[in-house]
Amino acid sequence: MGLKFEEEDFLACCASTKFAKEMAEASPFSSLDEAVTAARDIWFNKVDVSGWLQSFSAHPQIGNSPSPSSHSTSAQWSKGEQATAVATATSSSLQELAEWNAKYRQKFGFVFLICASGKSSDGILAELKKRYPNRPIVEFEIAAQEQMKITELRLAKLFSAKENVTSTGNK
Amino acid sequence: MGLKFEEEDFLACCASTKFAKEMAEASPFSSLDEAVTAARDIWFNKVDVSGWLQSFSAHPQIGNSPSPSSHSTSAQWSKGEQATAVATATSSSLQELAEWNAKYRQKFGFVFLICASGKSSDGILAELKKRYPNRPIVEFEIAAQEQMKITELRLAKLFSAKENVTSTGNK
Repeated sequence: MGLKFEEEDFLACCASTKFAKEMAEASPFSSLDEAVTAARDIWFNKVDVSGWLQSFSAHPQIGNSPSPSSHSTSAQWSKGEQATAVATATSSSLQELAEWNAKYRQKFGFVFLICASGKSSDGILAELKKRYPNRPIVEFEIAAQEQMKITELRLAKLFSAKENVTSTGNK
Repeated sequence: MGLKFEEEDFLACCASTKFAKEMAEASPFSSLDEAVTAARDIWFNKVDVSGWLQSFSAHPQIGNSPSPSSHSTSAQWSKGEQATAVATATSSSLQELAEWNAKYRQKFGFVFLICASGKSSDGILAELKKRYPNRPIVEFEIAAQEQMKITELRLAKLFSAKENVTSTGNK
């Protein structure tokens, strides 16, 4: 028997309601691999473009922490994913990142999305500048691919949390 | 001196406010060709994905007339563009078209968009069925290309209407 999750668990991985609903229907999954395969199929083939925008809008701006009052799983994970960026940032690089984030949002209508895990503040800024000249539709698809990378990392966290609980419970 | 148009004129060609605003700023145009070149650049490089969705949402469902109370330029043009489809439709083909339109909208979240000018009802239905299996992002870009074809036809109508007025005025 595989691990069973709820819509709420999947929403913390990727904030599209369609994604979370379809994942909950497809679960239980016998392994993380099986969950990732299902997630990729749902995300790229079934979630429509409004669902992509819905999930993008749940991300804090890179370089900004989620608000201190935010204790959701997603906000906590986001904080962890940006830990390297925060540790490597100077106040001037944070300032430049904030300016480019604003420029990006102005052009594309959504937040700059990148799987930040392990990336330095300068690395993220360089990537933002490189992606900025893209056509909106090109950038939209890149952002969706980054969202999928984030989703995969978070699914792994979800599985590892649940497995710990299960093995503790079995002791 | 070229022909000068207002935002409202361009909104009737393509109902993205960003598109209309940028076109009005880029006008006057010395020729239709120049206007089409500007329109392509604005549509594909500057209008963001929300702007694409905004323009899609202004189209009536293919096979449905705009409501009788609708006297806007865009609604009248849309009626003209669908004239062949309406003339070649039987009640059963209209029924099938309505069913597939609903299926399409359910999957993609926006209306099935096609440059209908000169196309029969059966031709449109065949195209809808062919496009339906596409991934949402692929279909989104195809719909944007169809919107551009419609925009080009409408820009031509705009120019020819304005030229008629101008030449009449010069007599």
